[in-house]
Amino acid sequence: MKCSVFIATSADGYIATKGGEIDWLENAGEPNVDMGEQLDMGFNNYLASVDCMIIGRKTMEKISSFNLTLNQWPYGNLPIFVLSNTLKAPPSNFISKVEIYSGEIPLLISRLIVEGFQHAYIDGGMVITSFLNLGLINEMIITQAPIFLGEGRPLIGKLNKQIKLKDSLVKTFPNDFIQIQYKVDYPK
Amino acid sequence: MKCSVFIATSADGYIATKGGEIDWLENAGEPNVDMGEQLDMGFNNYLASVDCMIIGRKTMEKISSFNLTLNQWPYGNLPIFVLSNTLKAPPSNFISKVEIYSGEIPLLISRLIVEGFQHAYIDGGMVITSFLNLGLINEMIITQAPIFLGEGRPLIGKLNKQIKLKDSLVKTFPNDFIQIQYKVDYPK
Repeated sequence: MKCSVFIATSADGYIATKGGEIDWLENAGEPNVDMGEQLDMGFNNYLASVDCMIIGRKTMEKISSFNLTLNQWPYGNLPIFVLSNTLKAPPSNFISKVEIYSGEIPLLISRLIVEGFQHAYIDGGMVITSFLNLGLINEMIITQAPIFLGEGRPLIGKLNKQIKLKDSLVKTFPNDFIQIQYKVDYPK
Repeated sequence: MKCSVFIATSADGYIATKGGEIDWLENAGEPNVDMGEQLDMGFNNYLASVDCMIIGRKTMEKISSFNLTLNQWPYGNLPIFVLSNTLKAPPSNFISKVEIYSGEIPLLISRLIVEGFQHAYIDGGMVITSFLNLGLINEMIITQAPIFLGEGRPLIGKLNKQIKLKDSLVKTFPNDFIQIQYKVDYPK
């Protein structure tokens, strides 16, 4: 099963401030420029390519804090697996089909393969780091906002070893955001 | 006077490992690919555009540790100003014209302007951060190596406030390195 990441960072590599805020994403670059067909910076095309989502508790709580209506909910009917050893149930305003999963990640992946899933959207810094350490992420699409935060929550946490990337592709957008796509190049 | 940065980072934004190592720069991407005319990824063109260099003590010591011969010395006759409050003299193998400077950065810039300098190459994480906090850096050219380190010395240290960037330009290279050029967009 393919596992990939579609995530935004600051130009210095943070996914949120230390306090977890992501409002800088709205202010970075040229928020009012005409984005034409690229308003979503490829997010909906990406979403159409995945058939499930695996996220961490913090990511779920962040999404939940937005109190999205059904119309605003970006993930459609995508099944969402939330990795947590402590949670029993998702927040009541968490709309999509959600399963709290507390086991080992490789066992979850094996199960999803058996159930016919083919491409998982992996989200949240800690979950992404765990998946990278397990050699499970195939592709990373990183959208860099043109802003330096100076500190914050890094995209990638502590790795067991350095991880090489390859086949880099880059897009620029009219709002001065940059999108970099890498394949992950694990040792053979 | 224009101040700019030309620096390499990992794909997760580090300029060195925690121990200060930069050997991953040699291993990242496709080290043996034919780079054609782009072997230096624009470094010599950049170097030709600056007329002085301002670095920190750690950066000087890193360069010094390479024990470069005159032939290997990349900075030609570029005058180099080393910011340090403790050093009295540069290491004996530090080749170019070096001045240790222990005063305030804005006073150094004023002096360099009076002396006719027009474009300074600012290098080293701490010095870059100080210059950004002083609103002195106009342009950043960041070459991202296709590798995740997971931890290390960040490109940018603690900022007084978030700093917006604009006019992003991107290049990709055959070795899967990416080069992003930003102008710094300080509040008016």
